[in-house]
Amino acid sequence: MKLMLNGQLVDSGAPALQAHDRGFTLGDGLFETIKIRHGHPLRLDLHLARLQQGAAILRLPLPPGEDWLGRAIHDVLQANNMHDAALRLTVSRGPGQRGLLPPDPSTPTILLTPAPLPPPLGPARAVTARNMRRNQMSPLSRVKALSYLDNVLARMEAQDQGADDAVLLNTLGRVAETTIANIFVVGNDGILVTPPVADGALPGVRRAEMLRSMVAIERSISREDLLTAREVFLTNALSVRPLIIIDGHMVGDGQPGPLGRRLSQEAENE
Amino acid sequence: MKLMLNGQLVDSGAPALQAHDRGFTLGDGLFETIKIRHGHPLRLDLHLARLQQGAAILRLPLPPGEDWLGRAIHDVLQANNMHDAALRLTVSRGPGQRGLLPPDPSTPTILLTPAPLPPPLGPARAVTARNMRRNQMSPLSRVKALSYLDNVLARMEAQDQGADDAVLLNTLGRVAETTIANIFVVGNDGILVTPPVADGALPGVRRAEMLRSMVAIERSISREDLLTAREVFLTNALSVRPLIIIDGHMVGDGQPGPLGRRLSQEAENE
Repeated sequence: MKLMLNGQLVDSGAPALQAHDRGFTLGDGLFETIKIRHGHPLRLDLHLARLQQGAAILRLPLPPGEDWLGRAIHDVLQANNMHDAALRLTVSRGPGQRGLLPPDPSTPTILLTPAPLPPPLGPARAVTARNMRRNQMSPLSRVKALSYLDNVLARMEAQDQGADDAVLLNTLGRVAETTIANIFVVGNDGILVTPPVADGALPGVRRAEMLRSMVAIERSISREDLLTAREVFLTNALSVRPLIIIDGHMVGDGQPGPLGRRLSQEAENE
Repeated sequence: MKLMLNGQLVDSGAPALQAHDRGFTLGDGLFETIKIRHGHPLRLDLHLARLQQGAAILRLPLPPGEDWLGRAIHDVLQANNMHDAALRLTVSRGPGQRGLLPPDPSTPTILLTPAPLPPPLGPARAVTARNMRRNQMSPLSRVKALSYLDNVLARMEAQDQGADDAVLLNTLGRVAETTIANIFVVGNDGILVTPPVADGALPGVRRAEMLRSMVAIERSISREDLLTAREVFLTNALSVRPLIIIDGHMVGDGQPGPLGRRLSQEAENE
């Protein structure tokens, strides 16, 4: 596999990053996971918009213009002769010396890492993370930051219990998201809702698309709401996945609901 | 400068880390900043104990035994002909493929980065971070994790206001720590207190030493307590620093207090 690091192709596994890179030393940077189908990046405008918002919060200088990302994606896919991929874009603040303050100016590290698109995963079982709460009182809850270890630990906790993912509650006990996905709920009133960003939901690109198309609205959700929902499903850039078991309890009748099933199918075919 | 990466000396600035290192992609790892004086690491037992506690929470395999770290420190200091240093130890989970679950087994990346010991900094001015709260409801508040971006952003906020550091409150509004130091307060009862780990204070090595020697006790602290204290000072592995201004208000008479001054001097000479 070839990666693209600061515009240069490098072999996966070769030494590539400086040990002083602040992505490594401080989790100081951002990432995006972009779905590639038939050589085309899906929702590239939404990924770029989120990256730009994150970069504004972190004060991370991005390359000028809008074309750099599409060109780099094209080049790294071509170098690997890939047409379908889960492509990760990582933008760190780049090398820095000791201390928390960034160098001024900083020279970000821009890395593109393609991977095969994962196969459809089927319905998910989740547990509620008990060891951590998501911090909606940090700007990082609104940003896809490299400082992602909270979610890693919650994912490990889910695995311990034989689950596929963990539902993350915020510090007030409201549902925020899972470790890698936004949560959508069809309540008994038939309305499709998803937690607001203020509750700690990462502003996902597929979530943005669903809110923009007015099929869903933002509303705070409790764990109880999940357990009594008609259906629940999980969305991220790569897929839509019905959630059928939470903490051992069935959602609805324990089968994927009609909306989650349909959207899951559409995401597979997009 | 020579760094030591997985037992090998490498030139600072050379490509060293794999792009898949989970320290870079997910902030998945730990670090320690160890003070070196006259060739000797100070509080090495406490650093190692904290690292082991963090590794247990992260389930990160460390090299066996207790000697590996002292030997590596000796070698990297010798290679740089350094006797006094601020030495950073970084232990990431090492390379991993896509997704949050760690490889099993993982092969951690162990990096030692020496830097010159910073000169004494003098009394500090701080602001209370407004944009973020420290999450005491995450296990990472008790761990010196590579996912450190919250503190970076708070440090940048402090700089914007011409301050040296930021006081971090937890999600309940209690004082936790600053971006790089523990906080100690001499109240009007003359008792020396520092926030408990449960309030989001990182278990610092100098803090541990002061609690062990019974000169200080753990007690929750409010922002008001800071403003009305007799004296306040900041501790980390490298130094002790009186805090004389908080949000534009003087602590005490705006001069370093006697205890902070003495401990600061002792830390310079240790």
